[in-house]
Amino acid sequence: MSLRLAVTAGEPAGIGPDLCVQIAQAKLSTDLVVITDPAVLADRADSLGLPLTLHTFGDAGAQSGNGHLTVFPVPVNAAVSPGVLNKENGAFVIETLRIAAEGCVDGRWDGIVTAPVHKGVINESGVLFSGHTEYFRDYCGVEEVVMMLATEDLRVALVTTHLPLKDVADACTGDRIQRVSRILNNDLQQFFGVPAPHILVAGLNPHAGEDGHLGREEIDTIIPALNALREEGLNLTGPLPADTLFTPKYLDNADAALAMYHDQGLPVLKFHGFGRAANITLGLPIVRTSVDHGTALDLAGTGKADSGSLHTAIQVATQMATNRRKEITQ
Amino acid sequence: MSLRLAVTAGEPAGIGPDLCVQIAQAKLSTDLVVITDPAVLADRADSLGLPLTLHTFGDAGAQSGNGHLTVFPVPVNAAVSPGVLNKENGAFVIETLRIAAEGCVDGRWDGIVTAPVHKGVINESGVLFSGHTEYFRDYCGVEEVVMMLATEDLRVALVTTHLPLKDVADACTGDRIQRVSRILNNDLQQFFGVPAPHILVAGLNPHAGEDGHLGREEIDTIIPALNALREEGLNLTGPLPADTLFTPKYLDNADAALAMYHDQGLPVLKFHGFGRAANITLGLPIVRTSVDHGTALDLAGTGKADSGSLHTAIQVATQMATNRRKEITQ
Repeated sequence: MSLRLAVTAGEPAGIGPDLCVQIAQAKLSTDLVVITDPAVLADRADSLGLPLTLHTFGDAGAQSGNGHLTVFPVPVNAAVSPGVLNKENGAFVIETLRIAAEGCVDGRWDGIVTAPVHKGVINESGVLFSGHTEYFRDYCGVEEVVMMLATEDLRVALVTTHLPLKDVADACTGDRIQRVSRILNNDLQQFFGVPAPHILVAGLNPHAGEDGHLGREEIDTIIPALNALREEGLNLTGPLPADTLFTPKYLDNADAALAMYHDQGLPVLKFHGFGRAANITLGLPIVRTSVDHGTALDLAGTGKADSGSLHTAIQVATQMATNRRKEITQ
Repeated sequence: MSLRLAVTAGEPAGIGPDLCVQIAQAKLSTDLVVITDPAVLADRADSLGLPLTLHTFGDAGAQSGNGHLTVFPVPVNAAVSPGVLNKENGAFVIETLRIAAEGCVDGRWDGIVTAPVHKGVINESGVLFSGHTEYFRDYCGVEEVVMMLATEDLRVALVTTHLPLKDVADACTGDRIQRVSRILNNDLQQFFGVPAPHILVAGLNPHAGEDGHLGREEIDTIIPALNALREEGLNLTGPLPADTLFTPKYLDNADAALAMYHDQGLPVLKFHGFGRAANITLGLPIVRTSVDHGTALDLAGTGKADSGSLHTAIQVATQMATNRRKEITQ
């Protein structure tokens, strides 16, 4: 049976619907079901001047690609104008996420790819929402998830994510480093087909602390945490200076890099994989990837949105779902 | 008159002498004078099996390139074994730096390019030494210098450099950001021939603080500092999220990036310019560049050292000295 992925089109006034229409133009190797209001897609295809034949999920002959899209229909609450946020549609966006997660758990599809949502307007609509990642974490009832970004030949996971810089050092506890490393190691095995992952771990301080001259966290916290993980069998190199880690000597033999914080790891990833990077949530029992960009309200309906990241997110989700299926059937 | 650069060969037991012998093999467009003990260079050339004819600076026919090197001779205090540090040579290393600086000030040469030194062994020898950058800063009697790394098409300067991560937020004061930005702007004009530099400035926090949700330093400190600089005429874009800054949309129209701290800016630079990056000290009245790597004691005498960074450091110093001469003669 071929793989099927659910794609949530996200904020209807943003570029999510544009990207769905755009990727539907090509031949697709994975069966896609877009979760949104079909009228939004039809209108957006008109704006973009692109051909689009819509099908309802479950109907005979439903297909995606070559100008076709299969939709799991969810009605918007208010008419959509590209670029104009409307809090009346906050609940609609959340409903598309719920259906995506539900279908993953009940086996209708093999994974979720999310287009961008707008946190602000969802919260204004009266729904508490701190992000896709937290939504799926809570839906799946897991305690901790890990953010990883990937492009063709580089994967960067983070120990801490959206924290003020001044709070990062305290947040990088030995426990947290260990939990994140275990999730990364496990998911590289389960979802990426890497039997014995080799992970490069960055230090927290410049030059990885330079033997304590530039900070003691490596000596007091990181090195003991990594040594304990090595006892468990993890294959880790580090803590490495972040500006040495991302060079061929280390990257050529590694499966992923683990950065201690957002701006230590993601600038390299986005520099290298600009427009071709996917955001992956590790630690979930389901496959979930995402684009690495926002709703870009000013580009909605203009034809200027770049579907490269959604394309990569679909590719990575396909790879993950394929490996997971192998794991399950073995 | 053609340009002349002094190259300090640095720690004699490290790869500095190897790199000098290696670059002497090619045709050189800049006149080089290596400051070290000529016996060290002759021995190292033997170890590497490379031809080398040495000349003394000031002699008739003295030249560099095509297998020749002109040396400003400074005798070592103790015989040198590749890879083996000897604190007796600490004072020798410092003397090569002093001569390099002196010759820059008195006009014997147009700039300094430094090969790596070993801070630890210099301090063990009884000389207080915290680095090349501080040495030349103090020699020139300036209060503040700025570290910038450059490769062919990317320049990254830093507001803070070798600080523990937990101290970074407090160190990024408005005053400091302004002083560093002015030095960067001035030196891009004076040394890099950029009449009206366009500088991209990173935020401190992830997503540049996301309107205060991920830290308030952008709102409280960075934005006011940048606005004041704009009043002075600086052309700044930012504060930008660091993982957005290093993408073509911004980099294509910029002359330099200013990162708030070491691991926010240098991983991208080293990833992109691996083996071809130079370290530049801005804010000095003289031209000074350096390799971006250390002494690599284990590679000394083996022929495995890569002279790419020294080559770039010489190229950048040549560019800087050429522009400076234009400034002076205009």
